[in-house]
Amino acid sequence: MASQFSFSLLAHDSTTAARRSVFCTPHGEVQMPAFMPVGTLGTVKGLTIDMVRATGAQMVLSNTYHLALRPGDEVVRHHGGLHNFMLWDGPILTDSGGFQVFSLASQRKITEQSAMFRSHIDGSLLDLSPEKAIQIQENLGSDVAMVLDHVVELPSPKEVVRDACERSIRWAKRCQEAATRDDQAQFAIVQGGLDPEMRVWCAGELAKLNFPGYAIGGLSVGETPEAMYAVLDAVMPAMPVDKPRYLMGVGRPIDLLEAIRRGVDLFDCVLPTRNGRNAQAFTDQGPIRLRNNKYQLDREPLDPHCPCPACRHSKGYIRHLFIAGEMLGPMLLTAHNITYYQRLMAEARAAIEAGEFETFYQRKKAGWTAAGG
Amino acid sequence: MASQFSFSLLAHDSTTAARRSVFCTPHGEVQMPAFMPVGTLGTVKGLTIDMVRATGAQMVLSNTYHLALRPGDEVVRHHGGLHNFMLWDGPILTDSGGFQVFSLASQRKITEQSAMFRSHIDGSLLDLSPEKAIQIQENLGSDVAMVLDHVVELPSPKEVVRDACERSIRWAKRCQEAATRDDQAQFAIVQGGLDPEMRVWCAGELAKLNFPGYAIGGLSVGETPEAMYAVLDAVMPAMPVDKPRYLMGVGRPIDLLEAIRRGVDLFDCVLPTRNGRNAQAFTDQGPIRLRNNKYQLDREPLDPHCPCPACRHSKGYIRHLFIAGEMLGPMLLTAHNITYYQRLMAEARAAIEAGEFETFYQRKKAGWTAAGG
Repeated sequence: MASQFSFSLLAHDSTTAARRSVFCTPHGEVQMPAFMPVGTLGTVKGLTIDMVRATGAQMVLSNTYHLALRPGDEVVRHHGGLHNFMLWDGPILTDSGGFQVFSLASQRKITEQSAMFRSHIDGSLLDLSPEKAIQIQENLGSDVAMVLDHVVELPSPKEVVRDACERSIRWAKRCQEAATRDDQAQFAIVQGGLDPEMRVWCAGELAKLNFPGYAIGGLSVGETPEAMYAVLDAVMPAMPVDKPRYLMGVGRPIDLLEAIRRGVDLFDCVLPTRNGRNAQAFTDQGPIRLRNNKYQLDREPLDPHCPCPACRHSKGYIRHLFIAGEMLGPMLLTAHNITYYQRLMAEARAAIEAGEFETFYQRKKAGWTAAGG
Repeated sequence: MASQFSFSLLAHDSTTAARRSVFCTPHGEVQMPAFMPVGTLGTVKGLTIDMVRATGAQMVLSNTYHLALRPGDEVVRHHGGLHNFMLWDGPILTDSGGFQVFSLASQRKITEQSAMFRSHIDGSLLDLSPEKAIQIQENLGSDVAMVLDHVVELPSPKEVVRDACERSIRWAKRCQEAATRDDQAQFAIVQGGLDPEMRVWCAGELAKLNFPGYAIGGLSVGETPEAMYAVLDAVMPAMPVDKPRYLMGVGRPIDLLEAIRRGVDLFDCVLPTRNGRNAQAFTDQGPIRLRNNKYQLDREPLDPHCPCPACRHSKGYIRHLFIAGEMLGPMLLTAHNITYYQRLMAEARAAIEAGEFETFYQRKKAGWTAAGG
């Protein structure tokens, strides 16, 4: 691991695999378990950088694929890197583009050398190799770079999953060899679809490469939550203990707690931001839809204990903003939802420290499901 | 005037008609000359209420017509009035709906009794009388309510302008008689199109009614700036000296200074907000278009002396936000433009106090026009 990074386990829960840890980067600490809001294009949609900070977020995620297309990683580098560009002085993690090649690009062709695909913006032909993915992320200057992986849809035939998994391991090694910055740590990505044995084998192979962090990738691509939890049950015991463990692209509040109790440390997901823009607010009683007519005369905030800017207003006001198509509606619910996720992680950390994660998990789950959430 | 309101002249400029004054309302003071950002539907588009406050704005304007349609003035009243609804604890001025009946509604028919028109939202038939306009504004609970006026397009035949002007005076009297709240002051609106004599006559007739404030309405409806300045030249000497003078819906930075040197105290306009959403930023060197390719690699802020959240970022970053269609672009430029207008008003107030408004005006004008702004 580059010397500017370190990872320390602070506490273990008494009855689950949940861990309390801290990950140190050149731009500060990340108290884990942690959730990263998604700032795809160098901005968390709808929030100023001060508003992002006020949610309690410690680390944000940006997308290599999107930034490479607009404004271009060389442009970001010219602006002093992503931290300077977006004015986020905390840690930043960038994904590798592998997931977007899978989910967004058209006419993609994966060879051993690279992923060739057409841009979803202008149809131009692009070529993303492991070396190129690292070069872009070094231009962006993120604290954590993800290795380029080969993502496949689920379910896929076993041979397809195995081929992509093996390639992802070879690409991880190429990424590692391409690194030139010691202020950027690379996280490897465990693939293997829904096959427990392949996941465990992949985790073992990647562990040999001694990355400073490990992710579980290729999930949240259409499988059921139960299938995802089953993968975690299988693979988490095979993941290095002394490195941060990052579950990519997940998920709902319940998914976060299910993963934490299996030993996951880090998350990202568009759910709080995307759903916030669509008038859905996360609460301890499950998600609620603010467009609903029943909130028109509601003078109460979403949560009187929430410190976010939305919760100073009434639900009736926020409903009005959405019905009238005002920008402030998406802005406020984005702030609320990210704050909700950050508070959930802070509570989870405290519960682990107290050795009471299971009780905390059961209590939260009961609240979310009682209201049908 | 209701006892909760007062107006004090603090200073006169040495060589122009510019005045420095303070207007006191139940929700605090307004240092004048002042500019009100427009919060049409109970929100200044793209800004949280904290961001509005941070621009330096003292008083905001909301639109009676829009709020009466969505969410309805009874709903706002249920939420404790507009101050509680939008969480703005400073003064609020509401217009009467007269201008929107003129500019937005379809199939309008003006009788002596009221304005009948169809909603631009759902086509429903609505009836706005002077009494109804006041009832709505009392439900909204604004500090200053505007009387209902009859606005006509310019140019119009003299008889049409005179008829609307005379009706506006009769309606002003009916508004005054309909008032029931002593925590709301009504401002009358001087009409009369581009006819200097009719403007002066209208101002005199309204002055007899002893309103706590007077507006110049029916401008910024397509006439040239010079025609508007000519109306001000004619009417300002006929406006009561000891009352605030409000030029409705105006305008560009140069228009504000031209009006201030003729004795205007208060303004509102959608220009800084609307143009900000369309990537135009106001600066001392004239307006600039942030979408322009030349800003891609620009690492400098719009104005290094501006305290707004946009000016912590580079022009290159703001351009990126607009090109990528990110909400943060409109949010930042809205904050910048309102801040620009507020700083301009603060500078104007200081220049009047120093007796140097003409020099200040000439210097600003030179900066704006040198760059073709």
